[in-house]
Amino acid sequence: MGLPKDSGLNVSFGFKKGERNLITDVPGVKVGHVTIKDEEKGIFTGVTAVLPHSGNLFRDKVMAGASVINGFGKSVGLVQVDELGTIETPIMMTNTFGVGSVLNGTVRYMLENNPDIGNTTGTVNSLVTECNDWLLNDIRGMHVTEDDAINAIKSASEEFEEGAVGSGTGMRCMGLKGGIGSASRILEIDGKEYTLGCIVMSNFGNPGELIVGGDKFETKLNENKEPERGSIIVVLGTDIPLNERQLRRIAKRAVVGLARIGSYLGNGSGDIAIAFSNSNLVPHYSDKKILETKMFFDDGIDMIFEAVSEVTEESVLSALYHGDTTKGFNGHLIYGLKEWL
Amino acid sequence: MGLPKDSGLNVSFGFKKGERNLITDVPGVKVGHVTIKDEEKGIFTGVTAVLPHSGNLFRDKVMAGASVINGFGKSVGLVQVDELGTIETPIMMTNTFGVGSVLNGTVRYMLENNPDIGNTTGTVNSLVTECNDWLLNDIRGMHVTEDDAINAIKSASEEFEEGAVGSGTGMRCMGLKGGIGSASRILEIDGKEYTLGCIVMSNFGNPGELIVGGDKFETKLNENKEPERGSIIVVLGTDIPLNERQLRRIAKRAVVGLARIGSYLGNGSGDIAIAFSNSNLVPHYSDKKILETKMFFDDGIDMIFEAVSEVTEESVLSALYHGDTTKGFNGHLIYGLKEWL
Amino acid sequence: MGLPKDSGLNVSFGFKKGERNLITDVPGVKVGHVTIKDEEKGIFTGVTAVLPHSGNLFRDKVMAGASVINGFGKSVGLVQVDELGTIETPIMMTNTFGVGSVLNGTVRYMLENNPDIGNTTGTVNSLVTECNDWLLNDIRGMHVTEDDAINAIKSASEEFEEGAVGSGTGMRCMGLKGGIGSASRILEIDGKEYTLGCIVMSNFGNPGELIVGGDKFETKLNENKEPERGSIIVVLGTDIPLNERQLRRIAKRAVVGLARIGSYLGNGSGDIAIAFSNSNLVPHYSDKKILETKMFFDDGIDMIFEAVSEVTEESVLSALYHGDTTKGFNGHLIYGLKEWL
Amino acid sequence: MGLPKDSGLNVSFGFKKGERNLITDVPGVKVGHVTIKDEEKGIFTGVTAVLPHSGNLFRDKVMAGASVINGFGKSVGLVQVDELGTIETPIMMTNTFGVGSVLNGTVRYMLENNPDIGNTTGTVNSLVTECNDWLLNDIRGMHVTEDDAINAIKSASEEFEEGAVGSGTGMRCMGLKGGIGSASRILEIDGKEYTLGCIVMSNFGNPGELIVGGDKFETKLNENKEPERGSIIVVLGTDIPLNERQLRRIAKRAVVGLARIGSYLGNGSGDIAIAFSNSNLVPHYSDKKILETKMFFDDGIDMIFEAVSEVTEESVLSALYHGDTTKGFNGHLIYGLKEWL
Repeated sequence: MGLPKDSGLNVSFGFKKGERNLITDVPGVKVGHVTIKDEEKGIFTGVTAVLPHSGNLFRDKVMAGASVINGFGKSVGLVQVDELGTIETPIMMTNTFGVGSVLNGTVRYMLENNPDIGNTTGTVNSLVTECNDWLLNDIRGMHVTEDDAINAIKSASEEFEEGAVGSGTGMRCMGLKGGIGSASRILEIDGKEYTLGCIVMSNFGNPGELIVGGDKFETKLNENKEPERGSIIVVLGTDIPLNERQLRRIAKRAVVGLARIGSYLGNGSGDIAIAFSNSNLVPHYSDKKILETKMFFDDGIDMIFEAVSEVTEESVLSALYHGDTTKGFNGHLIYGLKEWL
Repeated sequence: MGLPKDSGLNVSFGFKKGERNLITDVPGVKVGHVTIKDEEKGIFTGVTAVLPHSGNLFRDKVMAGASVINGFGKSVGLVQVDELGTIETPIMMTNTFGVGSVLNGTVRYMLENNPDIGNTTGTVNSLVTECNDWLLNDIRGMHVTEDDAINAIKSASEEFEEGAVGSGTGMRCMGLKGGIGSASRILEIDGKEYTLGCIVMSNFGNPGELIVGGDKFETKLNENKEPERGSIIVVLGTDIPLNERQLRRIAKRAVVGLARIGSYLGNGSGDIAIAFSNSNLVPHYSDKKILETKMFFDDGIDMIFEAVSEVTEESVLSALYHGDTTKGFNGHLIYGLKEWL
Repeated sequence: MGLPKDSGLNVSFGFKKGERNLITDVPGVKVGHVTIKDEEKGIFTGVTAVLPHSGNLFRDKVMAGASVINGFGKSVGLVQVDELGTIETPIMMTNTFGVGSVLNGTVRYMLENNPDIGNTTGTVNSLVTECNDWLLNDIRGMHVTEDDAINAIKSASEEFEEGAVGSGTGMRCMGLKGGIGSASRILEIDGKEYTLGCIVMSNFGNPGELIVGGDKFETKLNENKEPERGSIIVVLGTDIPLNERQLRRIAKRAVVGLARIGSYLGNGSGDIAIAFSNSNLVPHYSDKKILETKMFFDDGIDMIFEAVSEVTEESVLSALYHGDTTKGFNGHLIYGLKEWL
Repeated sequence: MGLPKDSGLNVSFGFKKGERNLITDVPGVKVGHVTIKDEEKGIFTGVTAVLPHSGNLFRDKVMAGASVINGFGKSVGLVQVDELGTIETPIMMTNTFGVGSVLNGTVRYMLENNPDIGNTTGTVNSLVTECNDWLLNDIRGMHVTEDDAINAIKSASEEFEEGAVGSGTGMRCMGLKGGIGSASRILEIDGKEYTLGCIVMSNFGNPGELIVGGDKFETKLNENKEPERGSIIVVLGTDIPLNERQLRRIAKRAVVGLARIGSYLGNGSGDIAIAFSNSNLVPHYSDKKILETKMFFDDGIDMIFEAVSEVTEESVLSALYHGDTTKGFNGHLIYGLKEWL
């Protein structure tokens, strides 16, 4: 349900929040989790799937753009997003060594639902993102399966949990328990209301770097600072009709929210933002060669840029707020932010 | 008039040529030259202006995309084209050390015609491209003036010369006289005819590298091969409604034509391609924040890609065909291709 | 053994060929194949592994750069290559739906050989490239396994086959049987001999587009032209000490060879080039924060650019030359180039 | 002298400041201003030149990288910096319509000092950056001359003023008087001290957006918020031996400091960062084709990333601190930050 009003934490500068304060406030967007957890074996990982709309994603692709904020990451599918400006599968999140299985699972899901793929038409570009959950999770064990990916997609709905769930199960963020966080904002454009939503898999930064409302958040953690091996994935979704170029500009602005919450874009952090609009659809098949699309008037886009910063910042904070203290692989103990509230 | 049918040279694989076989076959496009020539002083340079449409370019910007094929170049304005996907001034061509004056001249022209610029609205992004005409021209003399730029714009029309004129006056290409070349092709899309045109300022390559119709063109030149200091600017214009992303893809394909005519994308050659569509206009002012635009169905774009290759290759060949033997600065003598025909 | 001297085909313009005329002429480079073939079931696919040097690739990374010529591709690992300028695993090739399993296999191989990964140090960025072998292969069957990837790596040696082997088993190219091809050239620099090698997985283009030595190669194929669903992966390896930026420039020049052999960089073709130098190694661990590296003097790099064009063009031709006529999935029959020689 | 200790403003998190707390603390770096001011005519503009080292910049180029944070800008020379990874002239700053004249002036300065340019060797890539000083300055008057650029270069020294001087004369920033700001930090690497410096031409943002030490800085300005037409240029210089790829990473981190001081990377703001290292020089002429260079061990680069954020943030604050209240073109009055201290 996003960051609660009574959390004592606040990054909002005035935009109206969506009903759930989740990315699923954007009409058609759904999110599903599969949490993989075995405390004894030190398995704390999972898969999260973001569905950009509720129809056939391959037949009606969403326009999209991405920004590689720092490229120390192993995400799959971004090359084609950049070339064609579309996303045609669910956007998957998992741990670094789960990418292969999640990719396989996503391909299988797409093949099952689209008999034409690899047969009468070309292949499909699956989008799989990752963070490294090594400290809390036995990542070398490669515990994510193809079925986990398929089940995450199938379980997607408009209501979903935040914190240590799905792909966020074993994530850390600035020395605290990280994971999945989300938020949304309402924007009025030409007299009509639109929604901008965000979901993050938040796993970046070092202890002591968290900034809330401009102030360093004192957590008195004793962990030593070591080279960062984290990452953050930011997915921004909207029903504002932005085009491919504009969605890349939108994705690029996620960095503002990240900097304000405490990120230095560390060397070892794969920081990637992906933005899509589900009101600007591109068909897989078309009789006509010239398609009607919409673009936003760039001269008025600042309002959206500011909302991107705010919704990204709050999503990270919500991930921290919902992340409960976890004792993981090899007994590693990571505290949740709530311990200090 | 493009490459004549009886030139004995041919790169065409089947597309229908436009009426003039020039970029000005694209409705609305105009080209103007100012040739600066003083044989005694060794001045062989100039300015060429390409007008993407015949209205107010600042008020109605053309969608555009560019490709930096090799970035050893000093063009001005590409950063903003990449960010906003539009061109809002004539596309100027000149020599490397003429860029400053042509930029000033273009700014003055835009200010004169748009009292709002820098006053009630923002500034203007002028697009100025260049090649190094050092051997035939006294480039260190910096002989291009602001007025030359303004006059090139004002003289633009649908008919224009090719070869050693305008900014092409002192250019060389693969050991031969280079300069301005152009070509056009007609494509049928959804039952309607569209035009793709190209104009090049061709100044790249080393003696002996020219390939015509697949065969090395033997010119028995005795020039020694030295590190290339050339460049080529390719401007592709069309009335096919391609969007910013697609125009970048179009621009990227110019490299195919360049490779086929003999280019190795030499280290010292600033090879830059710019593509615009004047049927996809973006207004400077708009009451509405959501604009209607068109995009091409990418799955059918191969036809355009092939035409880009052909029209680029032929434009270079036409520049060579029209480039007459020239004795330039310090008595440097460069032969025109016709000496071998 | 590369393209034989008596093949009747020639693209060489004067560089000396390496001993084997294969990428493995570059000291330390090895290539391994696993061919997956079941004629009855219509399985014609596989895996090919390119090892950039013969030591521990994770501990001593090769400097690298890549060029996305056309991004309709699903390769994995390029984001990090661009950020860090290194490759730290074998470079894997497979079919589009084999990427997940090959990624998993490569990760397992790396984990087995490096107990520190995901434990005392960060994760590993595996590089997996792909083409779509759908017509000759039952690609929807997803027949590539993790073990196939591991076995391809383990079987790598200095001698390897070309044509319809490894990942090239089911590939087509310009209407002919495609697959794996390779070539090498010797360059003298500062009085010392260096080697530039290339290996391609060649699967692009439409029937009738092949150009050999400048002439359209007439194959009288009756296949209808359809939107391209191919791709080509070009891997360039060398012991010339080029740095990350320069290797990106090298990779970018592969396009010249592709254009000359007949490519139009089709919309549906994922055309990706990767270049590495194994004489410029970057350690995973270092006590010192400032490392000694080498770079090439850019002003003399044209010689290498020309060799890149030639070695890429010949590698594609060698893939075609070695690709034997194949009857694949659903009885699809694709002729080898030799049928016309 | 940078931001004084008793300013009451602070963004420092612990790095040691350089002696002057200016970019000129980096050995060899010099900065020169020409301030162009005529209160009656409403002329408030100028030129600032940053010299990356004190020798011949063309003969010994500094390694460099740039980051286009938001490309609504008209800077000149970035294409070649990206391709070759070097800067070979002073880095010039001026107003948007002064770029042509500053480019011409810089070219003339380079030609005068290098008789080989455009004669026995190629041309020169001048780097000219800009912001729009339209409200305080009569920008349409185009009052910057070629001589102003030459004089800015010639007057460069280790001591220089901040605030409303040089190219900063007419700049605004977040509703306050902006302009030139600078800062430096000392970093210890492998037992040796190095310096990281920054200079900004700060002209971005809307009234009320300034954040100091995490808190919105209340200035009670009554200006209406309008679409941003600002920009910021960030130049980072160091004697740490970073290579081209790493300098691009460094430049990319300027955005962290900008976000923390209040920037949303507004649509109309050309936000560009350029980073150079003057301890990694690339010669224009070399007998040897293989050069020795140094690179930083990326795994230890986080320390530099954090310093980049801090030094950028403080440079903007220092520009504001030194910017005195100015009544400019058409009587526009812009207050300096000190009015609120």
